Amino acid sequence: MPELKKLPYSYNLREQYENINAYFVNGLDTIKKELILAQNNLVTTPNIKLCELKDNFSSTVVLDKPMDYDDYYQLLSSQILPYIVNVTSPKFIGHMTSVLPEFHYDLSKLISMLNQNMVKIETSKSLTFLEREALAMLHREFYRYPSEFYQEHAQNVISSLGIIVSGGTMANITALWVARNSAFPAAGTFQGIAEDGLCKAYEHYECKDGVILVSPLLHYSIEKAASILGIGKKQIHHIQITPSGTVDVRALRSQIVGCQKNRQRIIAIVGIAGSTENGSIDPLQEMAELAKEYGIYFHVDAAFGGPVIFSEKYKHLIDGIEFADSITLCGHKQLYLPIGISMCLFKCPSKAQTIWNTADYQASQESFDFGKSSPEGSRPAKSIYLHASLHVIGKNGYEYLINKGIENANYLKKIILSNSSFELVTNPTLNIVNYRYIPSKFRKQLFDGCISREENKQIDEVNVLLQTQQFENGKTFVSKTKVPSSKYTEEILTLRAVLANPLTTFQDIDSVIIDQLRIAEKMIERID
Amino acid sequence: MPELKKLPYSYNLREQYENINAYFVNGLDTIKKELILAQNNLVTTPNIKLCELKDNFSSTVVLDKPMDYDDYYQLLSSQILPYIVNVTSPKFIGHMTSVLPEFHYDLSKLISMLNQNMVKIETSKSLTFLEREALAMLHREFYRYPSEFYQEHAQNVISSLGIIVSGGTMANITALWVARNSAFPAAGTFQGIAEDGLCKAYEHYECKDGVILVSPLLHYSIEKAASILGIGKKQIHHIQITPSGTVDVRALRSQIVGCQKNRQRIIAIVGIAGSTENGSIDPLQEMAELAKEYGIYFHVDAAFGGPVIFSEKYKHLIDGIEFADSITLCGHKQLYLPIGISMCLFKCPSKAQTIWNTADYQASQESFDFGKSSPEGSRPAKSIYLHASLHVIGKNGYEYLINKGIENANYLKKIILSNSSFELVTNPTLNIVNYRYIPSKFRKQLFDGCISREENKQIDEVNVLLQTQQFENGKTFVSKTKVPSSKYTEEILTLRAVLANPLTTFQDIDSVIIDQLRIAEKMIERID
Repeated sequence: MPELKKLPYSYNLREQYENINAYFVNGLDTIKKELILAQNNLVTTPNIKLCELKDNFSSTVVLDKPMDYDDYYQLLSSQILPYIVNVTSPKFIGHMTSVLPEFHYDLSKLISMLNQNMVKIETSKSLTFLEREALAMLHREFYRYPSEFYQEHAQNVISSLGIIVSGGTMANITALWVARNSAFPAAGTFQGIAEDGLCKAYEHYECKDGVILVSPLLHYSIEKAASILGIGKKQIHHIQITPSGTVDVRALRSQIVGCQKNRQRIIAIVGIAGSTENGSIDPLQEMAELAKEYGIYFHVDAAFGGPVIFSEKYKHLIDGIEFADSITLCGHKQLYLPIGISMCLFKCPSKAQTIWNTADYQASQESFDFGKSSPEGSRPAKSIYLHASLHVIGKNGYEYLINKGIENANYLKKIILSNSSFELVTNPTLNIVNYRYIPSKFRKQLFDGCISREENKQIDEVNVLLQTQQFENGKTFVSKTKVPSSKYTEEILTLRAVLANPLTTFQDIDSVIIDQLRIAEKMIERID
Repeated sequence: MPELKKLPYSYNLREQYENINAYFVNGLDTIKKELILAQNNLVTTPNIKLCELKDNFSSTVVLDKPMDYDDYYQLLSSQILPYIVNVTSPKFIGHMTSVLPEFHYDLSKLISMLNQNMVKIETSKSLTFLEREALAMLHREFYRYPSEFYQEHAQNVISSLGIIVSGGTMANITALWVARNSAFPAAGTFQGIAEDGLCKAYEHYECKDGVILVSPLLHYSIEKAASILGIGKKQIHHIQITPSGTVDVRALRSQIVGCQKNRQRIIAIVGIAGSTENGSIDPLQEMAELAKEYGIYFHVDAAFGGPVIFSEKYKHLIDGIEFADSITLCGHKQLYLPIGISMCLFKCPSKAQTIWNTADYQASQESFDFGKSSPEGSRPAKSIYLHASLHVIGKNGYEYLINKGIENANYLKKIILSNSSFELVTNPTLNIVNYRYIPSKFRKQLFDGCISREENKQIDEVNVLLQTQQFENGKTFVSKTKVPSSKYTEEILTLRAVLANPLTTFQDIDSVIIDQLRIAEKMIERID
């Protein structure tokens, strides 16, 4: 591309993007060397029923005599790995897991070799500071405090700009743990929930219940949080949503007022930035304003959508996130880290102290031991993944990845809209597309806008069949889910494409759709 | 060793042990190639103050332009890795983290490459069954049900023989989450804690408090559990301990009776099998009998000591563990897996259902998706580590590792007892030795058995100094802790050696002690 050399900035940018892409291509190539599935461009080995597969895993005796590792690896690669799922395939566009940049493979090995334990500075030393640095880098992207703030807090033993945990579920649980404890602060004879427990808190504050307000599109980790934290899932109050599927702010206000009248204390308002089902983003700015007005903790679950912050083109979609008391981010989603690292950022560096567990001696207040400030204890040095990616992918690299995903989603949307066999169910905000196959006998009703509840149920069943068969065939993959739809009164079962693999081309997307049409014709239209 | 060939069984055993040892030796060799610290036989780079080190980690800006990965790796290996802690050194005998068998390094890379997400069968397939198989293997070691039991439950979608989590803290939290929910089952209008919350449970059962009974030697994850679960740390009641540091069963009985009189519901009795401080093991059998008599949930925290089950010679130490409702095990401790995988086993395959989170669609009751039955959501396929080790190390291999650790601990104990500069603080049960340096001016009092509280305080300070200086010198390492002592009324600060590295020789142990004597002479005796 010699002509590009005349435009040095764009040239560099293009070159950088090509580099980033090359990391992913190499990642895929490495898999191909190892995995027979990938060599054959399959998503999974065809025509294996789960009920048959599971029967191969019934040797429950630990043998006295060890097996040679080479023999074990042979067993693994011949009998187990052919039956995993090739999530790295560019035609696997169904879940939030895809291919990784190649350097993470080597870092995984390195992390194992170092075997550092982040629970204590005595077993991690420089990596404790590296983790704090990586968290500060992310914090800065979202909260944009001046340099002095980060000078003061990044390596300050009593500050916590964020917490690294094993996954997004733990990040949401951690945030709501902080929110719960903050909603009932120690006062008078009440020493706080950590010491006295939840019921003493309700008693002391003469409150009937603690409540979480969130859209019905919440991730189910919020329900896990309500269960583990002792709040109870019934105390998750769904906020009404608008036809576009995001929180209705007026409804939220009246719910807040309602709770207060009812002696219910709102533990947190949760905004979603990239719902699991369809990538929708709540009106964070307006939710933040309401939370501030009523003095309520505001958490944003940006597990999926958070990295949009790196895209100059799309970052406006998550405007207002900078007002969140805490933000959940998932490493293995759009940060493209290996699974097993997520983070919860805290706007205020002292906020998370409400869940610290210090002891007289171990993990004392003055020590850098993460054991005191993390919900987890022993944990590996996965923060190297984050630190590496923030350097090696960088802002431009992440921008490229985010934009590419959205571009792919828009392409799929266009295909769906132009093909009468499919219906677009929600208009994609990010890189998730919900659509469904419409059997020929319902297409007229679809065109006339008069599909009945009973007909929708039949269409649901067809799509379940289609998705199951597609997975079993093993060539391409999308997932399925249920979403509320503005067009129908009931929830609709949809196919769900997540365009997260940067190696997915328009042609790959075509293949997925062609595969679905072929399956539908063969098995569904024929049944009728 | 030709003569051994005449004794085929022992020959095989010896050969197997040599193989196991070779995996660890290769592990250490691989590190040495990579890490300058290990090449120089150092525990950590000497004379680096943490406050200086942290100043190197203050670049909190994510740069637009990505850095080349080779440059990043150069930065990592030159500026960061020299300042980690070489936990693989045979002279690092201070924490529960050490060297790994080499094959885990490659498996770490493989797990990253496969990037399987255990949250759903659609992103893990055969590995879901592999995980269930590995859990069943462990379950069988502890609970010893007949084959038919494992045939029925190992791959049964509604059974859960155990849950894989990221670490021991999460395993203890998970067990106590199950215990809490089980202690207040749904009844009448009360739909259970998961739905209705903790306070409705106390109300419904007219109970004043939920209580956890555990020895004061509890791991602090139990405190984290009491905090996150809303029980409150004050509701952890310490059971009185005997002079040997384990639970006094008579005291336990009267505490149970006391709680019941006081309208306090006991959520769980927790037994410790290998305390973090000194490896002590509670009388599990008798505790189990009491728990059964009063119908109370019995959890055993065997994070450290659990793998003793593999040793014919020492398994009797944890007799009674088979009556536990749940057992915590830590992968990175004496199972020698990379950090980041622990497990909680459940005696009864339906017990853990009380914390399941099913949804209408996602993670339905009938699906194999771990998302419904694990506290965590997305998580990596680390169960491969467990599955591999159970095969490649096997029962004999683990027996060798356990026995070797205890043998090393006994050697260290002998040295301590034979040297008047040291005092043995607790008699080791497993492979943890608590001892302390006694400055010369206190040795007569030690001999006469009349060290005062004030003198103990001074000795404490000396040992803190000694341990800190030893870490700073970087050649050898033991940790420090505080333990109750039968000899003194107050808690004693002790040096704490964990003999977990199978490559640690008697000579290495000598070196650690010589290093300490040298430091003590140089800095401590001179101060006086």
